[in-house]
Amino acid sequence: MRRSFPFSAIVGQDEMKRALLIAAVDARIGGVMVFGDRGTGKSTAVRALAALLPPVPAASAGYQDGSARKGKVPVPFVDLPLGATEDRVVGALDLERALGAGEKAFEPGLLARANGGFLYIDEINLLEDHIVDLLLDVAASGENVVEREGLSVRHPARFVLVGSGNPEEGELRPQLLDRFGLSVEVRTPGHLPDRIEILKRCDAFERDPDGFAATWEKTERKTLRQLARARDALPGVAVPDEVLGYAAQLCMAVGADGLRGELTLMRAARAIAALEGVAEATPAHVAAVAPMALRHRLRRNVLDETGSTVRIERALADLAQAA
Amino acid sequence: MRRSFPFSAIVGQDEMKRALLIAAVDARIGGVMVFGDRGTGKSTAVRALAALLPPVPAASAGYQDGSARKGKVPVPFVDLPLGATEDRVVGALDLERALGAGEKAFEPGLLARANGGFLYIDEINLLEDHIVDLLLDVAASGENVVEREGLSVRHPARFVLVGSGNPEEGELRPQLLDRFGLSVEVRTPGHLPDRIEILKRCDAFERDPDGFAATWEKTERKTLRQLARARDALPGVAVPDEVLGYAAQLCMAVGADGLRGELTLMRAARAIAALEGVAEATPAHVAAVAPMALRHRLRRNVLDETGSTVRIERALADLAQAA
Amino acid sequence: MRRSFPFSAIVGQDEMKRALLIAAVDARIGGVMVFGDRGTGKSTAVRALAALLPPVPAASAGYQDGSARKGKVPVPFVDLPLGATEDRVVGALDLERALGAGEKAFEPGLLARANGGFLYIDEINLLEDHIVDLLLDVAASGENVVEREGLSVRHPARFVLVGSGNPEEGELRPQLLDRFGLSVEVRTPGHLPDRIEILKRCDAFERDPDGFAATWEKTERKTLRQLARARDALPGVAVPDEVLGYAAQLCMAVGADGLRGELTLMRAARAIAALEGVAEATPAHVAAVAPMALRHRLRRNVLDETGSTVRIERALADLAQAA
Amino acid sequence: MRRSFPFSAIVGQDEMKRALLIAAVDARIGGVMVFGDRGTGKSTAVRALAALLPPVPAASAGYQDGSARKGKVPVPFVDLPLGATEDRVVGALDLERALGAGEKAFEPGLLARANGGFLYIDEINLLEDHIVDLLLDVAASGENVVEREGLSVRHPARFVLVGSGNPEEGELRPQLLDRFGLSVEVRTPGHLPDRIEILKRCDAFERDPDGFAATWEKTERKTLRQLARARDALPGVAVPDEVLGYAAQLCMAVGADGLRGELTLMRAARAIAALEGVAEATPAHVAAVAPMALRHRLRRNVLDETGSTVRIERALADLAQAA
Amino acid sequence: MRRSFPFSAIVGQDEMKRALLIAAVDARIGGVMVFGDRGTGKSTAVRALAALLPPVPAASAGYQDGSARKGKVPVPFVDLPLGATEDRVVGALDLERALGAGEKAFEPGLLARANGGFLYIDEINLLEDHIVDLLLDVAASGENVVEREGLSVRHPARFVLVGSGNPEEGELRPQLLDRFGLSVEVRTPGHLPDRIEILKRCDAFERDPDGFAATWEKTERKTLRQLARARDALPGVAVPDEVLGYAAQLCMAVGADGLRGELTLMRAARAIAALEGVAEATPAHVAAVAPMALRHRLRRNVLDETGSTVRIERALADLAQAA
Amino acid sequence: MRRSFPFSAIVGQDEMKRALLIAAVDARIGGVMVFGDRGTGKSTAVRALAALLPPVPAASAGYQDGSARKGKVPVPFVDLPLGATEDRVVGALDLERALGAGEKAFEPGLLARANGGFLYIDEINLLEDHIVDLLLDVAASGENVVEREGLSVRHPARFVLVGSGNPEEGELRPQLLDRFGLSVEVRTPGHLPDRIEILKRCDAFERDPDGFAATWEKTERKTLRQLARARDALPGVAVPDEVLGYAAQLCMAVGADGLRGELTLMRAARAIAALEGVAEATPAHVAAVAPMALRHRLRRNVLDETGSTVRIERALADLAQAA
Repeated sequence: MRRSFPFSAIVGQDEMKRALLIAAVDARIGGVMVFGDRGTGKSTAVRALAALLPPVPAASAGYQDGSARKGKVPVPFVDLPLGATEDRVVGALDLERALGAGEKAFEPGLLARANGGFLYIDEINLLEDHIVDLLLDVAASGENVVEREGLSVRHPARFVLVGSGNPEEGELRPQLLDRFGLSVEVRTPGHLPDRIEILKRCDAFERDPDGFAATWEKTERKTLRQLARARDALPGVAVPDEVLGYAAQLCMAVGADGLRGELTLMRAARAIAALEGVAEATPAHVAAVAPMALRHRLRRNVLDETGSTVRIERALADLAQAA
Repeated sequence: MRRSFPFSAIVGQDEMKRALLIAAVDARIGGVMVFGDRGTGKSTAVRALAALLPPVPAASAGYQDGSARKGKVPVPFVDLPLGATEDRVVGALDLERALGAGEKAFEPGLLARANGGFLYIDEINLLEDHIVDLLLDVAASGENVVEREGLSVRHPARFVLVGSGNPEEGELRPQLLDRFGLSVEVRTPGHLPDRIEILKRCDAFERDPDGFAATWEKTERKTLRQLARARDALPGVAVPDEVLGYAAQLCMAVGADGLRGELTLMRAARAIAALEGVAEATPAHVAAVAPMALRHRLRRNVLDETGSTVRIERALADLAQAA
Repeated sequence: MRRSFPFSAIVGQDEMKRALLIAAVDARIGGVMVFGDRGTGKSTAVRALAALLPPVPAASAGYQDGSARKGKVPVPFVDLPLGATEDRVVGALDLERALGAGEKAFEPGLLARANGGFLYIDEINLLEDHIVDLLLDVAASGENVVEREGLSVRHPARFVLVGSGNPEEGELRPQLLDRFGLSVEVRTPGHLPDRIEILKRCDAFERDPDGFAATWEKTERKTLRQLARARDALPGVAVPDEVLGYAAQLCMAVGADGLRGELTLMRAARAIAALEGVAEATPAHVAAVAPMALRHRLRRNVLDETGSTVRIERALADLAQAA
Repeated sequence: MRRSFPFSAIVGQDEMKRALLIAAVDARIGGVMVFGDRGTGKSTAVRALAALLPPVPAASAGYQDGSARKGKVPVPFVDLPLGATEDRVVGALDLERALGAGEKAFEPGLLARANGGFLYIDEINLLEDHIVDLLLDVAASGENVVEREGLSVRHPARFVLVGSGNPEEGELRPQLLDRFGLSVEVRTPGHLPDRIEILKRCDAFERDPDGFAATWEKTERKTLRQLARARDALPGVAVPDEVLGYAAQLCMAVGADGLRGELTLMRAARAIAALEGVAEATPAHVAAVAPMALRHRLRRNVLDETGSTVRIERALADLAQAA
Repeated sequence: MRRSFPFSAIVGQDEMKRALLIAAVDARIGGVMVFGDRGTGKSTAVRALAALLPPVPAASAGYQDGSARKGKVPVPFVDLPLGATEDRVVGALDLERALGAGEKAFEPGLLARANGGFLYIDEINLLEDHIVDLLLDVAASGENVVEREGLSVRHPARFVLVGSGNPEEGELRPQLLDRFGLSVEVRTPGHLPDRIEILKRCDAFERDPDGFAATWEKTERKTLRQLARARDALPGVAVPDEVLGYAAQLCMAVGADGLRGELTLMRAARAIAALEGVAEATPAHVAAVAPMALRHRLRRNVLDETGSTVRIERALADLAQAA
Repeated sequence: MRRSFPFSAIVGQDEMKRALLIAAVDARIGGVMVFGDRGTGKSTAVRALAALLPPVPAASAGYQDGSARKGKVPVPFVDLPLGATEDRVVGALDLERALGAGEKAFEPGLLARANGGFLYIDEINLLEDHIVDLLLDVAASGENVVEREGLSVRHPARFVLVGSGNPEEGELRPQLLDRFGLSVEVRTPGHLPDRIEILKRCDAFERDPDGFAATWEKTERKTLRQLARARDALPGVAVPDEVLGYAAQLCMAVGADGLRGELTLMRAARAIAALEGVAEATPAHVAAVAPMALRHRLRRNVLDETGSTVRIERALADLAQAA
């Protein structure tokens, strides 16, 4: 078992970290899509968040075909390989074996292994559409249903789905993008001291993983406590009508198709409020999550993706001025 | 079992709701094609209509290979997954098993499961043509015939077929579109209070599904009674010659290929009359259903799909003026 | 069993009906190719002709692997599904089973089922070339020979082959088109009273199939008698040399490749004469069938298919003037 | 068994008939490629030549896996179907069966059935290259060798290979064309009396095959005797050096690649001399076969295939003038 | 067993030899990508380095499914064939056999055979992306995990990955290139005496491999000692902050995406320092490895690959001037 | 067994014959690539050289899975068919059978059959790249290693590889061409007496193979003795430094990529010297083989292949002048 880099030791990349925390607080948000440069620590961050969380009961992590398991295990982190087949992802159901021997005929797939944890897909734009669609279905419903030749297996598959891709190399179809709850952009850090700090932390971690982890343990615990409290508080956080109106106005101003944009704004604003420990979401919470909730829902135009963020910020400014 | 959003609680989207009710009144209408934006509640509406209808005898819903089933079950709603194979759709017939063991050799497919209910196909333009053709055949005849290697299985498959797709991302071939009875267009609502209302209803439903359903129960029952009465009245509704002439003139005016357009106008006008509880269809009924019956049957020209609707409305206005 | 629409109740579409009758009189004509708009009742007409004909001895209809069958059955009508495989069309021959069990190893295909009747192929341009070729071979020889791995099965497969397609959506290769005996063009009717009449008849048929059929029974019987008499008279109808010369001159005038054009003119003229009950074919008979016998054999040029018909008519006019 | 149209009753198409006779006299000539219009009786001619020849001992016709067969059978004629697989053409060799049961493991293919007769391939340009190559190998060597997984079956496969295709619809690669011994061009006859005569003969044959055959029996016998005498005389026919020089000069003049052109000229001139019953080939014999031996070996240029023939005739004229 | 050409006897190609030594000192560097002309001794150099290293315990080289092996064996060198499948590369896992017989069900692949040595992939751009990705994963983690149908095998796979390709014939995707630690360029030597020397050495080696090896044995041992010492010293070599800053500045100056560039600069500088036997890396070490660490990480622009090197050298000069 | 045409009786084509003799003297030269017109006797020449060589011990020719064979057999000549699969070329290894029955599980392929002889590949550009690569690997190493699922079979496969192709119809990738040792160009002979002589010899051979062979037996023996003596002398032939320098200068002058050019020049010059019976290679020997050793290694430019030869000759002239 390789030790993971501590979540709190990640330098910068605040938007990505915030989106991951929101998704960890409210699973109904749907997946997180990460756009951006290679080599910027995307999978490191997801793996780090999984490692940060406390071990879970073995029985509820990584569905294993119903066999009883005891004790606790680390929160699962699954990195979907390039070129994975549907069978490998959802699991394989072998009718012949089921009939012949009365034996266990279901070989759990990667979705089963990700149960209770995180599923990371690098270069998700290289995956076939129907698999992405299926992953989003499962991420939304928290359940994997495999049906083949009249047999049907159904197992829990609750996980945070994180996809990554570089929009310069082909995008997902808008229909699929729209099904992701949040999207974030990561860039290579441009500030020299940050880069030196990253190098030093990587070097320190590589040379002495345990020592490095010890240095960050206190900060990690604090993040963990924040997350636990937010999960508890979430159902009680109110979202007043004026906040809903603000979210809808924002979506109309940027011209997002459909209503998933404002539904996500509502859910993410409530989750951010919960992370901040306040009892009611405000327009400021909506504004804070607006880029990550809407950026991937704007119709593409001649402008580039950065342009989407700018359009959202401009709409936020216009609304503020009008208020 | 997730509870469905109440049909009556859907805000706006009147044309789609009307088309679904017409198809529920007269199955000979053929499928309903829904054009439009993602995230506008298309599958929610179909699922809601299925949930609205009263439970049906288990024996007649979701054909299950003839095994006797008792009691009542909810009206089936089947959401066809992207990338479904023909075998999965129509069912698989295994000759070897049939001969070898005298056993049940037919594994019912999604068509069987949809029997007595609704079959929803998102992004139908991604399905292979011969499967769409087959679905339309079955939807028209109410029967699924599977023939393989000399074996033949035939089971009832009566369902309302609803396909959806965004014409901006590739269309069905005109031959296939023409086989759909009706088509509707859905758009993201543009009225702010509507959007806020939608958000509030979604939030209320998510937070307390049962309480939300209770609020809408009375309205739901009213819709259900209207539907039941229309089904009974349908055979007795007259369509006078002048109404037929009006339908034919309209089709000629818009230049629809073939005669499916006016046949559908006749059937849909009769169904609308039945829903309104009147004994005879009128030109006004024809005009009311004209966009949904003809929109997808116009030859494409340089104008876009919105253009089709406009051409139909213009032809209606011309006919009104001429009368 | 759904009742078919009566053949005589079909409004207009005279060329298609005449071509079907000619093919029903002389099977050597080869298939009939129908060009034209969707939704114009093409398959309805073919199905209607099959239903018009008197029941045939079960033993000779729809070849069923040699098992004795008694009594009479309706004339078969087979609608080839989009995406049918070669095995499904010609039948499957299973060597292993033949050797292993001495059992019946041939599963008859759609060709076997069509024996003694009609085989209809919508959008024939979507079928693979080698299957179209094979269908035309069988239609011409009246026999289906299936050879696999040294086994050989041969069964009668006499049927009228009718293909349909819209030339705007891709054509058959000229080699395959040339193998069809006749071709006809169907268009959406442009005359308002015709369209109203069609609607009324469809509606009457849908609401009361048996009553509608009774209304048309007398006309149907008349058509049936004409057909039966023509079949008997056919071998005795003379085609004088001057008629052959007229046919050849016509083919040369329009520039048809090969000699299938004038062979078809000769056969179709004889069949038309037989349907009219006269003893000798005349140039007028040749002229009457010229468009349907030659239209699909002209080299394509910048002109469209309608252009082919016009070129044939112009050649007929020139020949008439020259005579 | 359908009776074949008599070879001698074919009107015109002299070059094709001559090429077929040459190939029937000297099998080393290789295949005959027929270019030209559809519907001009190409397969009829080949089938007719096969039917003309006297029955052969059953043991040597249509190789049947070595089982003893007695008596005589008609000369085989095989029409290769569009889309035939390699296994179907060469035969299938089943290792498992061979080992398991000591049984016959070779299922002879179409090559075996053609042994001692004719193999006709319409639209040969639609066949995969490696199958055409294999057919030409077998035609040249007179033997079919099938090797799979260490097993090897070898059986006689002596046949005249005739391919046809329309150069307007894609050609064979020059390498493959060059391996055909001869090529001929057929055109729709342009002479009215010929066309009437063809129609009359076809009609007479269709209406009374046996009577028609009786009319032509004497002419058929004459052709048969000529063929038999030529086969006997062939080895003794001399080809003097000046004739070889004339052939080589001709090839150089037209710029044919490689030496297969003049080798074919030599062989075909000798065969023609044998058919004429003379003891020595002359430059006139070379000139007579030059178009069919060289036409397909000229490098394509901006000119069309007709152009090839003209170029050969011009070279013949130049050589005559120079002599 | 063919004897390998001595590593030290390779004339020129200093950058390639240095990169291979760095990778041999620190496996975390990741693979080495070699760009350049064919026939320049790329695979010879890698094979030579493998042969130079001292034999390793059989138990740790070329993972062999756990069976005990004694003694020592040469360091493995595996040359991945063009067109290798994923199963051949990672090994094949046969579930059925595993269950049926309790037998060994894993057939080790090329990764297993390369364990403890070198894996060379010529024309890596012809390999499928997901296999390259997988190779880089394994090279980075030192472990091959094969999972199929619920079974899981995991074995050590520590090797130096060397890929080669000519950028003129299609490149790897930037994502994959970025995962290689180092890249080098090789060119055909342009100095006549070098070329003569190469020819003489090749000839001498071909004619008397053992005698040639004896001549170079002393030099080979010296290289080997340097390598062994560097491996031991590596963990103790310091990389001061100013060196990290220099590396980061350099990456920002050339505009490399992500942070893998400076991480590699840090590791390679430390390895070079270890090879030189000094205790601390300096900016000069970073500069020395900069072209091989960054060349393949620059965004492509209109300039060619040589241009990348020039851009790096220019940035180095700018930094030097600024200092 | 068909008798082969005598090698010495081939008229002209001196470069091809010389290249084949060089390859027969020194197998390390690698394969011979023949560019040029079809029908110029390429395969005849290779087959003739195989037939010229004295029978070899059966045990060493055409590897046959180790079963003992006695006596002598002709030198193998294998003509690789178009469309051969990898299994057919390298042999098939059947793991299941190996385990199940302890039986022989390797079915030798064409490489095994070619052992000790010649492998001829017509239109090698139609073969898949990875098979050409594999053939060149085996030709270079003299050994065929087949590895499947952990089983490994290794058998001698020493043969002279001869590929042919017409550069006008698509070329091999430069990487593959470069791996061929020599290349030659063949053209249709342009000299009339030569062509007549070829025709006469072909005719004489076809009519009386044995008599023709007898005429040429003495010349054949002489060629055979020359070949045998050259093989013995080869290791002792010196290649002085000035000759190596001359080879390197030549390669630099023509701009050949990599060093395979001058290595081949060295080896081929030594082989030519051995065939001439002299003890030392000279610049003249290098010049004599330069076109065949370098022609296929020049970078393609706007000039055609003939241009390559001209560029080599011009470089030779320049070097001569400079000397």
